[in-house]
Amino acid sequence: MSEENSDSEADEVRELKQKLSELRGKLRVARGELAGAEPPAISPLAPRGGFPDLPVIDGVRFAAVEAGVRYSGRNDVMLASFSAGSTIAGVFTKSSTRAAPVLDCQEKLAALVDSDNNNKGFALLVNSGNANAFTGNKGRNAVKKVTGAVAAALNIPDGNVFSASTGVIGEKLPSRKIIDSIDALESKLSGDAIADAAGAIMTTDTFAKGAAAEVVIDGQTVKIAGIAKGSGMIAPDMATMLVFIFTDAKVNAPTLQRMVSAKNRLTFNCITVDSDTSTSDSLIVAATGKSNVEISSPQGKSGRAFSAALGGVMRELAHQVVRDGEGATKFLQIDVRGAKTKPTAHKVAMAIANSPLVKTAVAGEDPNWGRVVMAIGKSGANVNRDLISIWFGDILVADQGWVSPDYEEDDSVAYMKQQELNITIDLGLGRASATVWTCDLTKQYISINADYRS
Amino acid sequence: MSEENSDSEADEVRELKQKLSELRGKLRVARGELAGAEPPAISPLAPRGGFPDLPVIDGVRFAAVEAGVRYSGRNDVMLASFSAGSTIAGVFTKSSTRAAPVLDCQEKLAALVDSDNNNKGFALLVNSGNANAFTGNKGRNAVKKVTGAVAAALNIPDGNVFSASTGVIGEKLPSRKIIDSIDALESKLSGDAIADAAGAIMTTDTFAKGAAAEVVIDGQTVKIAGIAKGSGMIAPDMATMLVFIFTDAKVNAPTLQRMVSAKNRLTFNCITVDSDTSTSDSLIVAATGKSNVEISSPQGKSGRAFSAALGGVMRELAHQVVRDGEGATKFLQIDVRGAKTKPTAHKVAMAIANSPLVKTAVAGEDPNWGRVVMAIGKSGANVNRDLISIWFGDILVADQGWVSPDYEEDDSVAYMKQQELNITIDLGLGRASATVWTCDLTKQYISINADYRS
Repeated sequence: MSEENSDSEADEVRELKQKLSELRGKLRVARGELAGAEPPAISPLAPRGGFPDLPVIDGVRFAAVEAGVRYSGRNDVMLASFSAGSTIAGVFTKSSTRAAPVLDCQEKLAALVDSDNNNKGFALLVNSGNANAFTGNKGRNAVKKVTGAVAAALNIPDGNVFSASTGVIGEKLPSRKIIDSIDALESKLSGDAIADAAGAIMTTDTFAKGAAAEVVIDGQTVKIAGIAKGSGMIAPDMATMLVFIFTDAKVNAPTLQRMVSAKNRLTFNCITVDSDTSTSDSLIVAATGKSNVEISSPQGKSGRAFSAALGGVMRELAHQVVRDGEGATKFLQIDVRGAKTKPTAHKVAMAIANSPLVKTAVAGEDPNWGRVVMAIGKSGANVNRDLISIWFGDILVADQGWVSPDYEEDDSVAYMKQQELNITIDLGLGRASATVWTCDLTKQYISINADYRS
Repeated sequence: MSEENSDSEADEVRELKQKLSELRGKLRVARGELAGAEPPAISPLAPRGGFPDLPVIDGVRFAAVEAGVRYSGRNDVMLASFSAGSTIAGVFTKSSTRAAPVLDCQEKLAALVDSDNNNKGFALLVNSGNANAFTGNKGRNAVKKVTGAVAAALNIPDGNVFSASTGVIGEKLPSRKIIDSIDALESKLSGDAIADAAGAIMTTDTFAKGAAAEVVIDGQTVKIAGIAKGSGMIAPDMATMLVFIFTDAKVNAPTLQRMVSAKNRLTFNCITVDSDTSTSDSLIVAATGKSNVEISSPQGKSGRAFSAALGGVMRELAHQVVRDGEGATKFLQIDVRGAKTKPTAHKVAMAIANSPLVKTAVAGEDPNWGRVVMAIGKSGANVNRDLISIWFGDILVADQGWVSPDYEEDDSVAYMKQQELNITIDLGLGRASATVWTCDLTKQYISINADYRS
């Protein structure tokens, strides 16, 4: 506190300007609403039935409160605690301007490898409304202060408290507000408050995201539950998002990290909303071991069963992030096969998924396969134009380098009216394949990002 | 002709389907117009005063006619002829699905290097409405037929006729219609019809693009005039566009090619509208030598003077392509300096220029510099976050890693209301720099590309 009170006059001026900027943001939102530019209350692609009924994970407790970081009238800070004996793994954005909490998490994970503290339990503190990114040393100090306060409250080492922040870039984290909320958070910690946690981490999300799996290993049930937030700045390495997954499996940290990294390549690194990569992307997985089912390696029957269940939860959360892509009205799966290598297949698929001309055609329900050809061509992948085939759903549109003689545009026009679409490319060169997911690009995306400051 | 008459029944079916698709396109346009989604008649960023008064280039003649390739009520084919003794250079899209005329031009340019035909004059045939891309061997044959017909009409070798096509991908080029128009084109060839040529190559362009320079070398005036078309699928390698430049300088082909390639890297490869790369990008430069001013090398006083004038025409045309970017309302120059290498500076600048979140913020007149930080971070360039400074115009927004204490958001809010904007980044790492140009991303871009099939 004393450190914060001694902040220079320049910082006070910064703070006043920050408030002015917040007020401007609110004015902008109000104007947008007046102009009828308000985005839909909930994405048309949201899963039916609202937030799923996630299982309680023994050893994990959650709490969420309203700390007033930026928003008002909603929770904006969440705390999760993991019992002694838990293990932790994480994957983070590769942005070279990554945020202070990301750097802090990465340093702490590295330091835990040979630490005596790695069986003393962990905690995770997350706020929305402020990303604590591009905030220099002040940002690093703010992370130290808030995570240190959590460590003191929960009586665990400082290095065992992870954090994430999402929201506006370049503004000072109001660390005092967050620290002042920790007592309330601690007193509310509960095993069945995961839905509150999922709500507190939302920014421009239109629905809270959750997924779960249960898998029987050696006759015992292992539970996995996860939450995520999107929904702009979504592109690989990783998508712009925070994802937190919890399990009662007993998994040593290196094994957990290997499984998480492997599945991340096939899930979160295979989605894009707008090709922009956030400074804050974080995926953190905690395994409490409370089920007493031990997974000692990604291989073997148990390892494969657990890994598949974990991958399923990750894929479902990745899909939910795309389904809540800003302005999205269509969910698009792109399958590329017949490539010489997996990286080539992935590169072609992502070039299609990131193409604004493909995404606007999908928005307009226009089966404009010429734009798919364009995107394959610009991908940088070495392809043979005259071997390329393209399907919209089951409809063969282009057959080895030219429009199929059997192609009826009526069919693809009808197909494009669906909400869930599938474009398949066969490059005709080999046996490698890749699948990625994206959404369409609509005027609503422009409204959200031109008229609002999130 | 006989070859075309012998086309199989499958091809006839293809043709009927193509017509149906064209009708559907027209219906789509009509619906868009009814819904008020019609884009503005002319870009607000268009140069004042209409198409410029370009100088006549001795040795170059132009003609344009309506051949009915796809559009009606406007010219859609243009022919240019270059007198004996002319030289030719070209730069083309790097797309791996590049169109048939691009492949044809590249082969012909390569074959001319040691050919006896390279002083017999050249011709250039360009159509709009159909890109002749992803059309397999039929597409290659169509190029051979139309360029062969021009060669016969002008009595020059087949290998001396270049061509370009722009428009819909994947549909068969109506070569008979184009061949049937060649007599009319030949009879209209005239030294002062460059404006007609510029009009005939337009697709979704809202204005015809032209630029010129005159430079005095050894007491004699050398003239350069160029035309271009945009305006979607604009990204480097190269931009989605056709550019044709003509000069009366006498320049040997290898020297011309070196100068064109060097200036291309600084002009057309430094613009982006939407990050999508066309299958048809072509830049062709012809030098007739009629001025008798000889440029024998890019170096030396004459070479540098000519090269600078050529680069100026190319930059002006590149800017006009951006100014006619689909839906554009703001012209944005991005300067990156303080990089260790030029490729790094270019990579950072293009990441900013291609970011949908930066471009929508510009559309919304929001000085959202956090998105600039994000784009720098995702560029893949090796940067030090705490050394980065950012200016909007002359306003220092972020100073070495954090918001400048002197920054007043009022200033940048006022600045963003301008039509011509400049964002400058100093990476603080070295002395290399790069400049790129782009436009904003608006709802109009979505309208044009979701509601229309160009």
